[in-house]
Amino acid sequence: MFKAVNLIELKIEKYNVGLPKFDIELVKYLINKKTGYDKISVEIELWYKIPHLIRKNNNLYAIVVKEEDRLVLLDLLESKPLNVLGCAIDIGSTTIALYIYDFIADQIICEFSIDNPQIVYGDDILTRLHFARKHENIQILRKITIEAINSALKNFNQESIYFFSICGNTAMTHFLLGLPVNYLIMEPYVPVIQWIPVLKARCLDLRGHPSARVFIFPMVGAYFGGDLVAGIFKVGLHRRERPCFYLDVGTNAEVVLGNRDFLIACAGAAGPALEGGIFSCGTRAIPGAIEKFELSLERGEINFKTIGDLKPVGFCGSAIISLMAQAFVQGLLTPEGKYVKDKFPERIREREGGRILVLVPEDEPSAGKEIYVSEHEIKSFLRSKGAMYTILRLLCEKAGLTFSEVEKFYVAGSFGINIDVESAVILGMLPEEALERSEAVGNGAGLGALKFLREPNFEEIKEIVESITYIELNTEQRFLELLTGALIIPHVDLEAFPKVKKILEARRGLCSE
Amino acid sequence: MFKAVNLIELKIEKYNVGLPKFDIELVKYLINKKTGYDKISVEIELWYKIPHLIRKNNNLYAIVVKEEDRLVLLDLLESKPLNVLGCAIDIGSTTIALYIYDFIADQIICEFSIDNPQIVYGDDILTRLHFARKHENIQILRKITIEAINSALKNFNQESIYFFSICGNTAMTHFLLGLPVNYLIMEPYVPVIQWIPVLKARCLDLRGHPSARVFIFPMVGAYFGGDLVAGIFKVGLHRRERPCFYLDVGTNAEVVLGNRDFLIACAGAAGPALEGGIFSCGTRAIPGAIEKFELSLERGEINFKTIGDLKPVGFCGSAIISLMAQAFVQGLLTPEGKYVKDKFPERIREREGGRILVLVPEDEPSAGKEIYVSEHEIKSFLRSKGAMYTILRLLCEKAGLTFSEVEKFYVAGSFGINIDVESAVILGMLPEEALERSEAVGNGAGLGALKFLREPNFEEIKEIVESITYIELNTEQRFLELLTGALIIPHVDLEAFPKVKKILEARRGLCSE
Repeated sequence: MFKAVNLIELKIEKYNVGLPKFDIELVKYLINKKTGYDKISVEIELWYKIPHLIRKNNNLYAIVVKEEDRLVLLDLLESKPLNVLGCAIDIGSTTIALYIYDFIADQIICEFSIDNPQIVYGDDILTRLHFARKHENIQILRKITIEAINSALKNFNQESIYFFSICGNTAMTHFLLGLPVNYLIMEPYVPVIQWIPVLKARCLDLRGHPSARVFIFPMVGAYFGGDLVAGIFKVGLHRRERPCFYLDVGTNAEVVLGNRDFLIACAGAAGPALEGGIFSCGTRAIPGAIEKFELSLERGEINFKTIGDLKPVGFCGSAIISLMAQAFVQGLLTPEGKYVKDKFPERIREREGGRILVLVPEDEPSAGKEIYVSEHEIKSFLRSKGAMYTILRLLCEKAGLTFSEVEKFYVAGSFGINIDVESAVILGMLPEEALERSEAVGNGAGLGALKFLREPNFEEIKEIVESITYIELNTEQRFLELLTGALIIPHVDLEAFPKVKKILEARRGLCSE
Repeated sequence: MFKAVNLIELKIEKYNVGLPKFDIELVKYLINKKTGYDKISVEIELWYKIPHLIRKNNNLYAIVVKEEDRLVLLDLLESKPLNVLGCAIDIGSTTIALYIYDFIADQIICEFSIDNPQIVYGDDILTRLHFARKHENIQILRKITIEAINSALKNFNQESIYFFSICGNTAMTHFLLGLPVNYLIMEPYVPVIQWIPVLKARCLDLRGHPSARVFIFPMVGAYFGGDLVAGIFKVGLHRRERPCFYLDVGTNAEVVLGNRDFLIACAGAAGPALEGGIFSCGTRAIPGAIEKFELSLERGEINFKTIGDLKPVGFCGSAIISLMAQAFVQGLLTPEGKYVKDKFPERIREREGGRILVLVPEDEPSAGKEIYVSEHEIKSFLRSKGAMYTILRLLCEKAGLTFSEVEKFYVAGSFGINIDVESAVILGMLPEEALERSEAVGNGAGLGALKFLREPNFEEIKEIVESITYIELNTEQRFLELLTGALIIPHVDLEAFPKVKKILEARRGLCSE
């Protein structure tokens, strides 16, 4: 299998009958003999060097890039290079993940992330999009993004980076290219371009080898970006025999269901809940963030563990989901998301027309501030988790499938790594079938971009893009119908959650004893 | 049929079901609907303009270029342009011919030529090639050639030139691109590149529209350049049912024989004679050059006509060929190329171990200098004319044909326009079959480049290049065997020239009366 960049040793043959009698045609012929490709082009800068190089050397090392259906000779070296590098990049709205890959050794030599510098112009994407309506401003976003990437790569030998594989959501892709976003943010939400041809990195001011190429993952729509395409490519949804889910939960919950025959997708604002964004005491996974709660009504205790064992500054999304599941199972939280005060009176307080559950009291020795969850917040959470479940349900319905016919639930992003699937199921965020069949894939988008360096299968990417049917939730009446039942923990239809039902029955049994 | 550049009016449709929901994909869709092409790419500079343009206008004018198997959108205009121009260029070693073509009106709006500025670095190609061995020097040749073209075009609206179609011999093509010629001038005479992909004009510093493209005709070998490929393309040799000759006589005589099944070619130094280069009184067709002689032994006169009716400064190649034919027919010149002194004693003089025929005596009132032809010069001429005939004969032999099976003799270059075919046949430079079947094609190379603007058939050009078998005269023993007989006027084998034979017999009849 051909990689995005390939090092090919060429044994230079002397001109004689049967060999092309043109220097560049001879080099193409030698590359063809080694690779079988007949569409080969040679970077114009090399036309001037090749006549001398092939006469001075018996062996040369060709750096050959795969560009759609053809090979392009990017460089011809007199000695074997130490490194031939590629760089995969996932431009997230918060962080930019980078993977440096060595094509010769076939291994990742470095993997790291940097903050997305666009945050200065808006925490959320919408603010940035509004900022970017002015031509000068979109150019600012473009410039700082490219500069951040160039600067992140400055400790590597940039001359030896021959290929960039980049993905991001639709807004990020527009920012990267400096494309107008004016019509992306108004009805009918039209992106500028879908399929971006392989470009020269220097056209984008990306620093690498002077002839380095960039592949940018195509977009499916305003709400379905190249990051998701990369994720599908990573897990190979489009090649599976039996249908699978791919969930990428960030600011939005983006979900794709499908196999080699079909792909249907939709995205909804189910994300904030899961990222902890709707909780006033929620925080990202920083030092001091509570990453785990243990609730014991029997002992009247809520124990917790923070990152770095520091004073608690807030809680992570994963911790609060687990806590809510425990509260529900132990009867402290009703299916409607209300606190049962007499189950834990010392921690439940009335505030602002509702109740809150104090997780860490202000006066607790180790605490700096009161950490709590209010019923108001839980209500928002229930909308999010309900949306999440409903999206899964809706996609299954559209495909004429039941959850039990879905083979895998690939869960990408930090959600997939951190969330306790059991808690998510108890709360009715994921169906029970996910218990046994979920698989955390990590940064699916970044890993998809990385996979492209190893397997630059343009046709496969095109297949994915062309086979996706995107469902607009706004205009989907059925979504609202289904959502209502999902606003309850775990769901109005308890029969869909037999294991949760059993847990609840066991608890009732205990209570009634 | 698609031209190299096409103006397409696009009616912008509003987004709705069935239309691609991406701005650039919409434009591609509209172009596809108008053209049927599905491989369409859009110049990156336009990505930034398109979103605004398609919303501001109901109609747009697309400038679309054909590039091998795909269309490229080069520009999108809000109003119909006055001109959409292309420029065809034939870079000859002496002059550069330019044709400005309007794609909309489908007509040539200007046709002119300029001196090739490389002449400063050598009158003949070999001197320039030696000069160009140094990298700095080849860059000088490149630069002055491009500058001469840019300057020749400066009176046209250069922004509206979207396509350049350029041909030249192999050396000229290397100079134009600044490619190393070091290995072109030594065994085994290897050019750098055969097939030059369509380039951006600005890569060559050619001034036109910022996105203008350049097509440069491919080379077949060191002695068979893109000019000849263009000539074959012009007359359509490769599409004919019955075999035809294509002769381009410049510094070299380049000859191709073939039809849709085969093309065989060779080139030899038959040219100088025909260009007047071997005659000390020969000159190019400048004012004062003798363009016509009339010899009358009966009246003892040689009359002549000069260009512009000025004092004679020398004679053109066409005039001297006609004169020699007259001299031969009238018995002043023997088949071996010797003067018969007593036929015209007042004009034949002994000089430098041979005889000369004085065409214009120094003391003639209208003359400034003596104008003559020596037997030495005629000997050189006989080698050239013999080579010319022998090349034709050899190619026929290789193809298993006789001259009578050749349908047409296309004669390109000034040779074709000026030479009296009858004189050439009498001297045995062309076979008698050429009398009825020759056709002057003018500047075949330049007209081929021009044809490409109208019919940019890349596949056809590839077919030509791939089907040519080139015969090296150096290594062709049969050439020397055949040449010997052709050094006689018209030929040792007089049976091959029945009409000439009849003329000679008629003269002998007259003499013997």
